[in-house]
Amino acid sequence: MSTSRLETFADGVFAIAATLLILDVRTVGPDLGQSLLHIWPSYVGYAVSFFTIGIMWVNHHTVFEQIDRVDRRFLFINVGLLMCIAFVPFPTRLVALHIRDEGAKAATLAYGLTLTITAVFFSLLWFVGALRGGLIKSDADPRTVSGLSRTYWPGIVLYLAATLVALVSPGASAIMYAAIGLFYVLESSIFGRNV
Amino acid sequence: MSTSRLETFADGVFAIAATLLILDVRTVGPDLGQSLLHIWPSYVGYAVSFFTIGIMWVNHHTVFEQIDRVDRRFLFINVGLLMCIAFVPFPTRLVALHIRDEGAKAATLAYGLTLTITAVFFSLLWFVGALRGGLIKSDADPRTVSGLSRTYWPGIVLYLAATLVALVSPGASAIMYAAIGLFYVLESSIFGRNV
Amino acid sequence: MSTSRLETFADGVFAIAATLLILDVRTVGPDLGQSLLHIWPSYVGYAVSFFTIGIMWVNHHTVFEQIDRVDRRFLFINVGLLMCIAFVPFPTRLVALHIRDEGAKAATLAYGLTLTITAVFFSLLWFVGALRGGLIKSDADPRTVSGLSRTYWPGIVLYLAATLVALVSPGASAIMYAAIGLFYVLESSIFGRNV
Amino acid sequence: MSTSRLETFADGVFAIAATLLILDVRTVGPDLGQSLLHIWPSYVGYAVSFFTIGIMWVNHHTVFEQIDRVDRRFLFINVGLLMCIAFVPFPTRLVALHIRDEGAKAATLAYGLTLTITAVFFSLLWFVGALRGGLIKSDADPRTVSGLSRTYWPGIVLYLAATLVALVSPGASAIMYAAIGLFYVLESSIFGRNV
Repeated sequence: MSTSRLETFADGVFAIAATLLILDVRTVGPDLGQSLLHIWPSYVGYAVSFFTIGIMWVNHHTVFEQIDRVDRRFLFINVGLLMCIAFVPFPTRLVALHIRDEGAKAATLAYGLTLTITAVFFSLLWFVGALRGGLIKSDADPRTVSGLSRTYWPGIVLYLAATLVALVSPGASAIMYAAIGLFYVLESSIFGRNV
Repeated sequence: MSTSRLETFADGVFAIAATLLILDVRTVGPDLGQSLLHIWPSYVGYAVSFFTIGIMWVNHHTVFEQIDRVDRRFLFINVGLLMCIAFVPFPTRLVALHIRDEGAKAATLAYGLTLTITAVFFSLLWFVGALRGGLIKSDADPRTVSGLSRTYWPGIVLYLAATLVALVSPGASAIMYAAIGLFYVLESSIFGRNV
Repeated sequence: MSTSRLETFADGVFAIAATLLILDVRTVGPDLGQSLLHIWPSYVGYAVSFFTIGIMWVNHHTVFEQIDRVDRRFLFINVGLLMCIAFVPFPTRLVALHIRDEGAKAATLAYGLTLTITAVFFSLLWFVGALRGGLIKSDADPRTVSGLSRTYWPGIVLYLAATLVALVSPGASAIMYAAIGLFYVLESSIFGRNV
Repeated sequence: MSTSRLETFADGVFAIAATLLILDVRTVGPDLGQSLLHIWPSYVGYAVSFFTIGIMWVNHHTVFEQIDRVDRRFLFINVGLLMCIAFVPFPTRLVALHIRDEGAKAATLAYGLTLTITAVFFSLLWFVGALRGGLIKSDADPRTVSGLSRTYWPGIVLYLAATLVALVSPGASAIMYAAIGLFYVLESSIFGRNV
């Protein structure tokens, strides 16, 4: 199977998961002005998750640019990865609604676990699906290939660390989720990849 | 009409149906941590239906790779098939919400009927739309064509059997729906198809 | 502007509008089995609207196959048409919920008006956008072009008639909406078009 | 990275954001006929936001037709822009629900701020991402390039003005939002751009 059809389906899931995030931005209470200020965590959650999905979409394409065909194993790891990405709106809603009440720990744990498992599936897609599966193009840029290999472990470690922080301080872990997103916006220079 | 536009529309429906599944994962009750554990059937239902839609998407593409044009009959069988796939989030929600109460039988029956009818439409698309319609490419791989022909009857039989089991044991039928998904992830070797 | 990008956007709107229909299939009441039988108008509404959107998508492509470029006027008529198609889930929900209560007349009127206006926009796209705009390909099949021209007026007339019937008998108009969909599935032979 | 994949993702977000608008058109109250008339601001809000998103989609493509590659900076400005566009259904719902009650000022302010920030991101995409980033095609039409440059400042100014008007007269600002949309449907002749 060629990669292009797979990308259309994946692009759809990324775009829909990101756009569905807005359905969970909702006001409550009688005074609209006050309510719009009160729900600021919904805006922050929307922005952080939208950008995180956007970054993962960019990363997903970088993976697909290094390969020229897919096999069945790669295909199903990819479905697993998309299943994680489409799940993101759920813990985003939890964090936005509960970051200021006693549900904060459960909400930030759920967010962190989702992103950690997503990072694990990204590693599986790259190390097991693409590299071990022998799908890398013969003319792939070695700098990008080794750059991608260096990208995935930190992702798992960072999200796992932030998830563990949620056990102690949900607020701190929420800040870490935003910071990890920012880190990946800037990371290409750190890991020496182009694009 | 060429097949490529049809695939864009179909890819959209598959991707949206899979991604909409997350809208039905919802917590209830005051204690968020407890609620997140309590709704585990929602996670299982989400995963099983996401993977089932993913498998059907892979299968749909394998069909489209064997044909090089579509006629009006194929087109409308395809719309019927997509109508079934877009319906999947509804019985998924029912099973997730009711598998532990007295609605379990009705919910697992609804799930099974939806998937059985979907399997029938897949057979119609292949046997009536593609084969009888004479749409198969002249250079299609005969091994894949005959492999596809052997794939569809077991699908109908398996889903129908699991649906009938729902009359006796809803829990057992729910496990069968998950097992059928797993079977189709692994089936390519069983039916001797490549991809 | 080339037509291909416009088709990607349009395909997205068609696919999403059709798939969102499932969000309005919802059970009510404590007994799930009874509720699943009770909401049969939701299934019929889902199927009729899904097929109607599917037919309009096929028709939309037939229009796009006759043209090789678009201008600004065509572009905005097309946005108006997509606005109508994305509106369809709303009156579909109304008919499904109210066909058996005193809201039936209002619901079937809303459904009919939506489809009538959609049919008017289809005519505008074809007669004003494509034909008067001079966008038809030099090598377009004259039989398909004249077949399309004969398709649109009956659509407006049929939907307008069914809308007027809603004033007297909502049930009869609902049956007419389903029949018009069926008519357009079969119409290619009637109007002598291929595809 | 080539521009085509980016456009698929962007087209998805535009199409989904526009189509999700219908989820917020909802009737309230027991009398369906009366309710359908009462919620007229929902129809106007739906139409204005659908057309505004449609116009921005056309504009987005005009930008993409002038460039032949993207860099990381362009990529993330683009994610920011899509984040704004996917946000539009939220203030649209607020205006539709509250334009006739004491929440009108907060609702129209929220709508105006969203569109103003979106206009700022469009300027960033063009002036910083495309022009300063040196991504413009060598064979781009200079008339279209300079026409685009003249388009963005008025957009920011117009939306900011309408937002400020919301502080005094929410109704007047709502009319201005519709008028700005209409202005951009007609603007190509004003700014001397083709398409």
